Amino acid sequence: MLPLVMKKTPSGIAPLIQVDRRAREPLHRQIYNAYRAAIVERALRPKQQVPSTRTLASELGVSRIPVLNAYAQLLAEGYFEARVGAGTVVSSMLPDEVRSPQHAQASTSSRRCAAPVPPNSISLPSMGNILPWLGPRLGAFSPGQPAFDQFPFKVWSRLVARHSRNLRPPSMHYGSPMGSNGLREAVAGYLRTARGVRCEAEQIMIVSGSQQALEITARVLLEPGNSVWMEEPGYRFARALFNLQGCQIVPVPVDREGLNVSAGIKRCKNARAALVTPSHQYPLGVTMSASRRLQLLEWSHRSGSWIIEDDYDSEYRYESMPIASLQGLDRGSQVVYIGTFSKVLFPSLRLAYLVIPRDLIERFLAVRFTFDIAPPNFFQSVVADFIREGHFSRHIRRMRLLYRDRRSALLNGLRAQLDIPIDVTGEQAGLHLSIKLPRDFCDHEISERASRQRIWLAPLSSYYRKRPSQQGFILGFSNTPAEDMPRAVRKLRDVIHPR
Amino acid sequence: MLPLVMKKTPSGIAPLIQVDRRAREPLHRQIYNAYRAAIVERALRPKQQVPSTRTLASELGVSRIPVLNAYAQLLAEGYFEARVGAGTVVSSMLPDEVRSPQHAQASTSSRRCAAPVPPNSISLPSMGNILPWLGPRLGAFSPGQPAFDQFPFKVWSRLVARHSRNLRPPSMHYGSPMGSNGLREAVAGYLRTARGVRCEAEQIMIVSGSQQALEITARVLLEPGNSVWMEEPGYRFARALFNLQGCQIVPVPVDREGLNVSAGIKRCKNARAALVTPSHQYPLGVTMSASRRLQLLEWSHRSGSWIIEDDYDSEYRYESMPIASLQGLDRGSQVVYIGTFSKVLFPSLRLAYLVIPRDLIERFLAVRFTFDIAPPNFFQSVVADFIREGHFSRHIRRMRLLYRDRRSALLNGLRAQLDIPIDVTGEQAGLHLSIKLPRDFCDHEISERASRQRIWLAPLSSYYRKRPSQQGFILGFSNTPAEDMPRAVRKLRDVIHPR
Repeated sequence: MLPLVMKKTPSGIAPLIQVDRRAREPLHRQIYNAYRAAIVERALRPKQQVPSTRTLASELGVSRIPVLNAYAQLLAEGYFEARVGAGTVVSSMLPDEVRSPQHAQASTSSRRCAAPVPPNSISLPSMGNILPWLGPRLGAFSPGQPAFDQFPFKVWSRLVARHSRNLRPPSMHYGSPMGSNGLREAVAGYLRTARGVRCEAEQIMIVSGSQQALEITARVLLEPGNSVWMEEPGYRFARALFNLQGCQIVPVPVDREGLNVSAGIKRCKNARAALVTPSHQYPLGVTMSASRRLQLLEWSHRSGSWIIEDDYDSEYRYESMPIASLQGLDRGSQVVYIGTFSKVLFPSLRLAYLVIPRDLIERFLAVRFTFDIAPPNFFQSVVADFIREGHFSRHIRRMRLLYRDRRSALLNGLRAQLDIPIDVTGEQAGLHLSIKLPRDFCDHEISERASRQRIWLAPLSSYYRKRPSQQGFILGFSNTPAEDMPRAVRKLRDVIHPR
Repeated sequence: MLPLVMKKTPSGIAPLIQVDRRAREPLHRQIYNAYRAAIVERALRPKQQVPSTRTLASELGVSRIPVLNAYAQLLAEGYFEARVGAGTVVSSMLPDEVRSPQHAQASTSSRRCAAPVPPNSISLPSMGNILPWLGPRLGAFSPGQPAFDQFPFKVWSRLVARHSRNLRPPSMHYGSPMGSNGLREAVAGYLRTARGVRCEAEQIMIVSGSQQALEITARVLLEPGNSVWMEEPGYRFARALFNLQGCQIVPVPVDREGLNVSAGIKRCKNARAALVTPSHQYPLGVTMSASRRLQLLEWSHRSGSWIIEDDYDSEYRYESMPIASLQGLDRGSQVVYIGTFSKVLFPSLRLAYLVIPRDLIERFLAVRFTFDIAPPNFFQSVVADFIREGHFSRHIRRMRLLYRDRRSALLNGLRAQLDIPIDVTGEQAGLHLSIKLPRDFCDHEISERASRQRIWLAPLSSYYRKRPSQQGFILGFSNTPAEDMPRAVRKLRDVIHPR
């Protein structure tokens, strides 16, 4: 990217130089020495800009003469170099002593007494688990990726430009820990209309992604030692969060009707909370049946337990109308509802929301404030306008048609090409479906083979907490054009074979 | 704000309507009933847009005829109204039954069995403590507020527009939990040069404000029951965070040289960590002396304790060159360094950073990922360019001169107008100074009087954990023009009198 046109030559950050007028050493020598030391110790790096002589003189409160002298010497000795239009920079060809490896290593740890870190961090996800999340995923089947190239870039960038031009002091302050009123109103209206959530804007809290929604919820509702029902298989990174909070996880099996409530009651009747994905179970994709929903609410009322409803991709339902949220069925206020813009807009926006039971608003607000004060302001206004002006519902409608085609292409491909008996679940909604493999297949082995072909396959077995677990894959279809799907499925077929 | 010009009439969000073709009730009646119920139950609200008949028919998978019939009836009965250019909306003049208060109250909690929330939330900040943080502060002296009107809006908004035009799929993915490489490089360069921090870009983690930096640090380094040194007086919202984490807070007095390390050792030799603000103590504003810095590092090495250095406003130093960070003095790796863009740019940006000892990077990354996956992407790129292109250091230089003037105006005003013996500290740096009042003054009483005059004064005593505490105020000067200062100080004088 080209820098903006500027009137002046860019001027670097002023380094930490202490000058002492009463010292015997002349000022130009002090400045020279300070620069030389900073370069040798690699506090200043090759090609880094240094301030103009005028700027530095004013920073140090000295006349320009000693600064000019010091710069001349540093240039002459090759510590600095002058670049046309770019001012003075630290030389990219430094003397050997500076480039020697022990200097590069200077800041490496040599702790005298190793300070310990708490052992509970051990249950956290490792880099290996996180890595696939870090950037563009490999291959056709990575789950939860919206069709980025279909995003309404033009409308979005016009909204961004408008809000950027209108940046004013009032919106530069911290803002409310609950989020901006405009976005909370827009989200509440959307949830009441499209998701059957019973809420007012005052119950909405804007957060930085649904993981943060879970984090805040866990901190408000749970204490170390509490038991929590989690779907088995279930969302892995929620597990890490509950572990970090010191909670006991009770895995409750999921069948064709969703979470098996009776099994949960048998395992741990008095769990403090249950985390569920009733619209499109993660990862299997099943929709929780009406009778299970009522059973779950009944249990939560009787045992005084909380239900955390994660409604992460329910906007996309292909074969029937969307099913109302669990929260909307609840006549008490036992349900905390979580939704996100990651799947409908895009993940790096980091915007999601919580619907909080009225009597807990103060608690949630206090915990949120203590964690990170308030959400950033700018994109809250952009998204509020995006919803208010109708772009949001139009985008969802367009994407639903697109994803339906992509899903059909995946289903057709699987039916036509896979010659092993697979069991497909969760294809009615969302951005992924799941396939279950017969027992003589090992999903991790296949996944490793696939990664060598640059296909990233999420093995179903890693979503189970207990062994032996089901083998299979979560197959995302939302970011692969329908016409590319047959080729992708052929690749998949070629790596799937028994151990 | 005017909506963008659009080709079509805006169309509302499709409501949750289940139609059943096999039911005896005709389709138009089913649609009519669903709308009527949603309006009566306030899932749809007055003036809310409804989808066009064409859109709804396609959503429901039915022909347009029954939808047209249902809409006609809803319009005729006054549930809907047609607005020129705005399509069809829910009527703003609804029948009485809909407006009755019991409907409005429908979603209020009537929990059968009150599910408990953990008692540890009790030590959290209350709304009263948080409120002053929520928006533009009242009056001249609110601390930590940059001069919003001096922000380089033009350059900023050009950078925003540029990045918005260049939004591409790769930057829409989650991104790294550590933050973007571009911003991490820019921050590392800045910290090495201007703050004497010893770091490489790989040690930088971008976070959503310094409060989140503290939250992540506390979770990595501390366990429930651990003791933590905090400056007395000290930053209140850090206290809330350590409380939430179940830590014991050991208040360690601050004198003219900063944290009294020997006093800390006497009170709790084996504290697990110490949170300090050595550049400009919060709230007193003193700078930690060189000997205290060495003493603190010596203690931390001997006892294997961590030091958390919060360097929140050290960019602004008025009477001497900035003092290098404590982190840069440390030859081991016992210091976790925190800095923020809230004071140098603006708070609602929610951008801050951590410098992590190398051997803890994995731990920090895992905890951060578990909390909220990764920071939002967009403004990381904007700020990286803002630094790289020299706007950042230019802005800091401009603001330093401006704040120096404002600070002098405040000091002159205090000297000229206050006729009681006050003790000023912390005026060498930062965005605020502190005044201490004689014992017969009560800062809370004065603060309440001031708030009735629309001046928000932060009472010093509320930054102490133990009573009896020092009375006084933290006076911010950065967001008040020098010419307005005399009048502001007169107002201050008028509310300060003994109890």
